[in-house]
Amino acid sequence: MANPSESLHKVNFANKRSFGAALKKDLKETFFPDDPFKQFENQPFSKKTKKVIQYFVPVFEWLPKYNLSLFKYDLLAGITIASLAIPQGISYAKLANIPPIIGLYSSFVPPLVYAVFGSSKHLAVGTVAACSLLISSIIGGKVSPIEEPELYLHLVFTATFFTGLLQTAMGFLRLGILIDFLSHSVITGFMGGTAIIIILQQLKGVFGVTHFTTKTDVVSVLRSIFSHRDEWHWQSAIVGIIFLAFLQFTRFVKQKRPRLFWVSAIGPMVVVVIGCLFAYFAHAEKHGIAIVGHLTKGINPLSIKHLNFDPKYISAPIQAGIITAMVALAEGIAIGRSFAIMKNEQMDGNKEMVAFGLMNIVGSFTSCYLTTGPFSKTAVNFNAGCKTQMSNVVMAICMMLTLLFLAPLFSYTPIVGLSAIIMSAMFGLIKYKKAYHMFKTDKFDFCICMVAFIGVAFISMDIGLMLSVGLSILRALLYVARPVTCKLGSIPNSTLYRDVEQYPNATEVPGILILKLGSPIYFPNCTYIKERILRWVRDEQAAANSKGSDDIEHILLDLGGVTSIDITGVETLTEVRRSLEAKGLKVTLVNPRLEVMEKLIATKFVDLIGKENVFLSIEDAIEACRFTLKSSKQFEV
Amino acid sequence: MANPSESLHKVNFANKRSFGAALKKDLKETFFPDDPFKQFENQPFSKKTKKVIQYFVPVFEWLPKYNLSLFKYDLLAGITIASLAIPQGISYAKLANIPPIIGLYSSFVPPLVYAVFGSSKHLAVGTVAACSLLISSIIGGKVSPIEEPELYLHLVFTATFFTGLLQTAMGFLRLGILIDFLSHSVITGFMGGTAIIIILQQLKGVFGVTHFTTKTDVVSVLRSIFSHRDEWHWQSAIVGIIFLAFLQFTRFVKQKRPRLFWVSAIGPMVVVVIGCLFAYFAHAEKHGIAIVGHLTKGINPLSIKHLNFDPKYISAPIQAGIITAMVALAEGIAIGRSFAIMKNEQMDGNKEMVAFGLMNIVGSFTSCYLTTGPFSKTAVNFNAGCKTQMSNVVMAICMMLTLLFLAPLFSYTPIVGLSAIIMSAMFGLIKYKKAYHMFKTDKFDFCICMVAFIGVAFISMDIGLMLSVGLSILRALLYVARPVTCKLGSIPNSTLYRDVEQYPNATEVPGILILKLGSPIYFPNCTYIKERILRWVRDEQAAANSKGSDDIEHILLDLGGVTSIDITGVETLTEVRRSLEAKGLKVTLVNPRLEVMEKLIATKFVDLIGKENVFLSIEDAIEACRFTLKSSKQFEV
Repeated sequence: MANPSESLHKVNFANKRSFGAALKKDLKETFFPDDPFKQFENQPFSKKTKKVIQYFVPVFEWLPKYNLSLFKYDLLAGITIASLAIPQGISYAKLANIPPIIGLYSSFVPPLVYAVFGSSKHLAVGTVAACSLLISSIIGGKVSPIEEPELYLHLVFTATFFTGLLQTAMGFLRLGILIDFLSHSVITGFMGGTAIIIILQQLKGVFGVTHFTTKTDVVSVLRSIFSHRDEWHWQSAIVGIIFLAFLQFTRFVKQKRPRLFWVSAIGPMVVVVIGCLFAYFAHAEKHGIAIVGHLTKGINPLSIKHLNFDPKYISAPIQAGIITAMVALAEGIAIGRSFAIMKNEQMDGNKEMVAFGLMNIVGSFTSCYLTTGPFSKTAVNFNAGCKTQMSNVVMAICMMLTLLFLAPLFSYTPIVGLSAIIMSAMFGLIKYKKAYHMFKTDKFDFCICMVAFIGVAFISMDIGLMLSVGLSILRALLYVARPVTCKLGSIPNSTLYRDVEQYPNATEVPGILILKLGSPIYFPNCTYIKERILRWVRDEQAAANSKGSDDIEHILLDLGGVTSIDITGVETLTEVRRSLEAKGLKVTLVNPRLEVMEKLIATKFVDLIGKENVFLSIEDAIEACRFTLKSSKQFEV
Repeated sequence: MANPSESLHKVNFANKRSFGAALKKDLKETFFPDDPFKQFENQPFSKKTKKVIQYFVPVFEWLPKYNLSLFKYDLLAGITIASLAIPQGISYAKLANIPPIIGLYSSFVPPLVYAVFGSSKHLAVGTVAACSLLISSIIGGKVSPIEEPELYLHLVFTATFFTGLLQTAMGFLRLGILIDFLSHSVITGFMGGTAIIIILQQLKGVFGVTHFTTKTDVVSVLRSIFSHRDEWHWQSAIVGIIFLAFLQFTRFVKQKRPRLFWVSAIGPMVVVVIGCLFAYFAHAEKHGIAIVGHLTKGINPLSIKHLNFDPKYISAPIQAGIITAMVALAEGIAIGRSFAIMKNEQMDGNKEMVAFGLMNIVGSFTSCYLTTGPFSKTAVNFNAGCKTQMSNVVMAICMMLTLLFLAPLFSYTPIVGLSAIIMSAMFGLIKYKKAYHMFKTDKFDFCICMVAFIGVAFISMDIGLMLSVGLSILRALLYVARPVTCKLGSIPNSTLYRDVEQYPNATEVPGILILKLGSPIYFPNCTYIKERILRWVRDEQAAANSKGSDDIEHILLDLGGVTSIDITGVETLTEVRRSLEAKGLKVTLVNPRLEVMEKLIATKFVDLIGKENVFLSIEDAIEACRFTLKSSKQFEV
């Protein structure tokens, strides 16, 4: 044990940092936690300029070092993801109720933009199912895609423009922090719910139903399908089931033999090609199997003049833009981060946001709709051995060639084939194992996940998302509002003091109650902390009375876990002290941290309580308390 | 120093608590932090029933013990607050654009209800300026109080009903936690801004202007006053200034000699009486000094049949009900708590909410509008020496007598006198000293306060309030999103490890980086914590390289300040560990707390990292690390 005579270590009451210094540090931690400008320090001007340009436009960083041996890998990966991009592009465009060719356009321009500004080496750009459906449900609620297809399409471009604008702005303002509030639980539930409703929607294509609801919830969709049983086409259903079985088989192969990932990667392309051949030779249309229909040759026409800012409709694209921006970022950044971690690289979320944003702004000018970095495509890209952003360029060139020469061939693609592709992709997004893991380990996370899932499946996508985000923010606020406090006891044969509930062998110190406060002391939890401390004291006194042991005389508040405090917090400490002193109890503080100490000095609380009642360690404080305890005993005797 | 051979204390890896037990504890801490049912434990049934009734209806607790010697004090206090209630009731009713008699009614029924259900001994019930203006600005935006006075009045009753309903519901659902989110800074700024606009509005009465804006912001009000200079009445202005000077003088007397508080307490009554006499004998109306006008004799008529739930208007009373419920509760509960602390008593916020709610529901049935516990009146009650809730009963009886016999006399009250009373009361609410104190001690609190002040003064009351509440919630979320981490060093001659920034004399341990994490590790801060840890490591490695000292080999994460962790948090720890191990660094955990340990065990993180790498104290962990450090050195040599 420490020598008592040496154990009174000095608490640092030095003057507080200047406001400017504290603010600068806080701002840095809030907006630049990854310290991106560190690398520019202490560099000559020319080198600094070069580094800054490389920082903002990563293509200047990787392209100069590029060589043929890297290209071999990227070429293969690029072709693989292009073969996935064609069927996915057509399918998801159908999901968004826009012409299929838009889906192909969207895999041409945005990947090129991303290759210039994006910083992830593995991310493959493409359209995503969830956002496609979100767009169609929000914009479709305002303008019918069937009655006014042109206006609807223009509003989709406008929504994409707003998405891009918001993403870029968020990136420049370093608001990556907002994405952090979409927790894994929310994303899991949202994706699962979306997958369910997308799968059900595909029953439309599988059964060849023509009259269909515009709503997305499970009940409306099921009612819509079963109330139009007269429109069902068994031929279509059989073809659909065969395709789906084939795709699920390719996935099964990938699962069993991860090296054969390409089997599942080219599966959708195989379905499209076989479907086209089948439709062409068997005159499928006459047998009730719908096909995609006319696809024009040629690359993306300009669409900048079609952006529609008519106040009559503007609310829908803005709403769609905001929601899809967040969802697309959450998906794109999460996947980018996951692969960066696998390779032990770093990724700057804010820079990625700018890249996504620019990609969508340019996309909205060139007849593309919302793109991001989808889970599935990125995984394929990674498995195919991509080395740099060049694989996106390769994919874009493949798409260009397709658009210029092959597009009309795909007009024979049977709709049911696309439905099978979408359904098969969606099965993988229902992560029931992850949900079960949540249920086992954290009931509240599971609850948030279920709210997202059920909300999306049974109410609507945006309401489900907002409900679950609201719930998870509420949880974050509850952590602030109800910080954990605990009573500490002495661990035998040591100078350690630990939670008596966690370490039942820890012994309490007679006459002294040691409380450890957690989290910031702060207006939403001040009342709670006050009540809680007073309750600890009441309980302790009751226990002492019933046991007939010494009444407590000292309260030690261990502030080591309190990271900050606001004015209301300091007022609370003052009130707690006043209440306890009125009961004849003495309050002692232990180990206030830097920011807390600054605030306690600035508000003169330290003068009020007395510097002699602030200690650096529990050991020191107890030593001092024991001294007064003994002396008071002596007086009594 | 502790003996090394004994220093390896055992970490408790015992099984976690059952889900039910953990949930029960969490719910208790969230909704019953003050443990109100403790007193009912271990009691026989009859006594328990009695205690429960006394708990819910406090009148049964204090009335049986009541005696004449207490009544002496309450009688005096009751008469004093009644003399304040008459002028305030009339004034604030004018502020709410409803007939003055409603203000008098509102000081008769609600105090009686509070006396039965309220638990604060010092609280005096009455109407408040801020809420009166809020009601008139929200409901006045929907229905004009001049063109449709009857409909307007009925909507005010309806708003009061909703207020009461919401307050009661919040109390029963133990949502006192919501009130905690209205911080002192918000309240200070809101009250200050409200005071400014109320004072400016009174210029209407002082100058006797008849055409006036319904908006509340500073610009509209000033423009309204100065664009109608032709309507100004100099006689009215002179009388107003004299009254105001008198009232300010009585306040000055109170400030200098607190024992003469009654001078300022009866000041408003003196103004009303002198004003009435003056108006009656000098025929003030003919000289451009407006009077209150006809007041009917008789107590409150029933108004339950006037509650208006017409869907056409319902949104206004609901909105007004919600906002005023929160503001009224914040004021009432804050003042109740303050006086309870002064007397070292306890107050149950949730029980008070139910009392306020019942008081407003009954009030809305009996021609009263919103009441709560106003700061000023409660302070007068306290200073006048009230002992129990009986003082409210005395005030109610005084009001009843006034309504039955004296009401018509007050019809001569000059409007300008009421304006002077309101203005004088408002000056005290502009707490510039408190704002300055905030500026000195906490810039963010000051900022929130200023947003409330400027928002209320220049935009509108509800927007100002919401903006500042939003900002303070944002701050609470930032605390969650950006927890403080720090590097620990060894304090010389001790076993203590403290922040090296706070204690510059703390020495770093060669080859080992000790980081202390604060706050819960939780989805909104996971990415940050990961980036921050990796940055600490990078900085440390760079520093080690530049100094040529030993490279770090161990990272110690002190989790003593981490109160809880969610699934995303555990995943983050896993990722951090993977990243660091890839760099050849070993991760060790120190002192995980109860809930964190449970989660780490449930998610099998403990098995992943190995139980041998979790330590109870930094000292133990360093001891273990040193062993491997030395051995690796030996291998190298």
